[in-house]
Amino acid sequence: MITAADFKVTKAERSRLKDVNLENVPFGKYFTDHMLEVDFADGEWKTVEIKPYQALTLGPSAAALHYGQAIFEGIKAYKSADGKAAIFRPLDNFKRFNISAKRMQMPEVPEEIFMEGMRLLLQLDSDWIPARANHSLYIRPFMFSSDEMLGVRPGHNFKFMIILSPTGPYYGKPMKIWVEEHYVRAVKGGVGFAKAAGNYAAAMYATEEARKNGFDQVLWTDPIEHRYVQECGVMNVFFIIDNKAITPGLEQGTILAGVTRNSVITLLNEMGITVEERDLSIDEIIAAHKAGTLQEVFGTGTAATISEIKELCYKDYSMLFDVEKWKVSPAIKNRLDTIRYMEGPDTHHWMYYI
Amino acid sequence: MITAADFKVTKAERSRLKDVNLENVPFGKYFTDHMLEVDFADGEWKTVEIKPYQALTLGPSAAALHYGQAIFEGIKAYKSADGKAAIFRPLDNFKRFNISAKRMQMPEVPEEIFMEGMRLLLQLDSDWIPARANHSLYIRPFMFSSDEMLGVRPGHNFKFMIILSPTGPYYGKPMKIWVEEHYVRAVKGGVGFAKAAGNYAAAMYATEEARKNGFDQVLWTDPIEHRYVQECGVMNVFFIIDNKAITPGLEQGTILAGVTRNSVITLLNEMGITVEERDLSIDEIIAAHKAGTLQEVFGTGTAATISEIKELCYKDYSMLFDVEKWKVSPAIKNRLDTIRYMEGPDTHHWMYYI
Repeated sequence: MITAADFKVTKAERSRLKDVNLENVPFGKYFTDHMLEVDFADGEWKTVEIKPYQALTLGPSAAALHYGQAIFEGIKAYKSADGKAAIFRPLDNFKRFNISAKRMQMPEVPEEIFMEGMRLLLQLDSDWIPARANHSLYIRPFMFSSDEMLGVRPGHNFKFMIILSPTGPYYGKPMKIWVEEHYVRAVKGGVGFAKAAGNYAAAMYATEEARKNGFDQVLWTDPIEHRYVQECGVMNVFFIIDNKAITPGLEQGTILAGVTRNSVITLLNEMGITVEERDLSIDEIIAAHKAGTLQEVFGTGTAATISEIKELCYKDYSMLFDVEKWKVSPAIKNRLDTIRYMEGPDTHHWMYYI
Repeated sequence: MITAADFKVTKAERSRLKDVNLENVPFGKYFTDHMLEVDFADGEWKTVEIKPYQALTLGPSAAALHYGQAIFEGIKAYKSADGKAAIFRPLDNFKRFNISAKRMQMPEVPEEIFMEGMRLLLQLDSDWIPARANHSLYIRPFMFSSDEMLGVRPGHNFKFMIILSPTGPYYGKPMKIWVEEHYVRAVKGGVGFAKAAGNYAAAMYATEEARKNGFDQVLWTDPIEHRYVQECGVMNVFFIIDNKAITPGLEQGTILAGVTRNSVITLLNEMGITVEERDLSIDEIIAAHKAGTLQEVFGTGTAATISEIKELCYKDYSMLFDVEKWKVSPAIKNRLDTIRYMEGPDTHHWMYYI
């Protein structure tokens, strides 16, 4: 059991906050005054340090740079118009972090280090949380193997850190998505459900190919038939077909169990919309589009929040949508915002006040 | 075109070599006096620095630690009894490095930086190459994204480095291998053929499960039927069945195109042994074992060299081998050693003298 005595706090001499314009600040570019850092060595977690944001010193043989044993989480803190600050569902991200840790053969991070460490860090840097629509403070907990040893084996030494970055909207406008049917992100028995560093690098080639063709992201399909849609790499995906919501299920372990995905399912249910978590084929999507029953398509994620998809292209079949006319995704976004910016009741206790 | 003027060499003030016992030195634990480091920024490679081995300074948001955009190679330099020093097939590793770079959406490293940089570095640290059977100087070129920016996108800034580590035998004795049929390393359309950092982290959980059960490594099977054998994560695998050699083919892009694998195929052909690169099912392997025609099983890799497999276990069917009686793998190892330690003719021009 970690007690408060195991947190060592060193404050920055001066804040860099006044150098940063928080309005429309780009995602992940600026970092706050402090960070959290704790080492795992000799089978135990050492003193948790909260200290000025600073560079790391790593041996060139640091295992994470060679064998990719690294995981992360993405969480957001919000500020209300009247100055209240809270984090959206951090305990769910904490649990997923340790699911990732287990899959990647890394030590689990104790709840008190993760949660209390995050809270202390955010208290110190709470002025960095933008109090503005579509803005938030992005929280990035991450862990990597710091062993300085080239043998391929799970690390014995790890570093867990939390850094904070104020952020505006990730995707400023509705997205154009390419349905990928050649490259593969994840397969059953693999690490697709983990927020493992290598999943993101593995997705970059196909994503860049799509970008060259004018798309923002790819929608991955299953690795065997390239027929069932999966996720977009940085977000889960929802289809509104014939007034029902359909989103790929988690059983295969090939997609991330998104916290926003889970929140959206809850809110859709509240709105009286049936949600089906199941296999959804591109054929079914195209058939719905042709029949005029494919009403909305949107992505969900911590960074992406709710991102409407205005074009979905499979081979040479392009599905274009007039997102201005949509009802469901704006309503979901509105309900989420009401909770996150603390403008209405938080009936699910999703907000964690700092 | 990089010219010699773009190499900046700074020598270490003193050598640490006398502090290290090179006999049976463990793999990847000690590093030589110098390293190579060059940055890619603004769309070009900067000055190549060869300088004293030292720690790196990286921002906590360095992309490689979050999104795993990192690749590497493994190469070995040998020293003959009479003091000649040479590298085994480095040009093949150079080519594979750039195949990995392309797949992982990273810039290709120019041949002169990779090859001439490696040569200069090795010249400086040539005293670190152990002149001893089963010993060599392991060469680790690697590259990673150093962007300090949390948006998921291919990096704009990269670091290419080469570090050197004297090494004894990787696997000291014949291995026990578990045939994996639940977890998956790679799938067609994925990055299994690339020497990408994330492939190694993704393999650790299953490997540790196997280790807990007394095995040294897993033999991966195909991701769909779990029926066709693939590779061992750190080595390719060869089966001698009925006097023919069979090794999984490269067409699916799920296994590494090993340089040692390729060398072994060449040497087997020279020895008059037919080599089949093709799908090989566990059923065929078991049938051969039952029929008494499964003669030898061995792994090949730069670190592993030729590693004989004394036990191969699939579910509850264990295949045990008396490796002392084997003929092919010792002959291959002997032929390879003759070339690598420069004791006989290098008819394929595999040795690159430094």
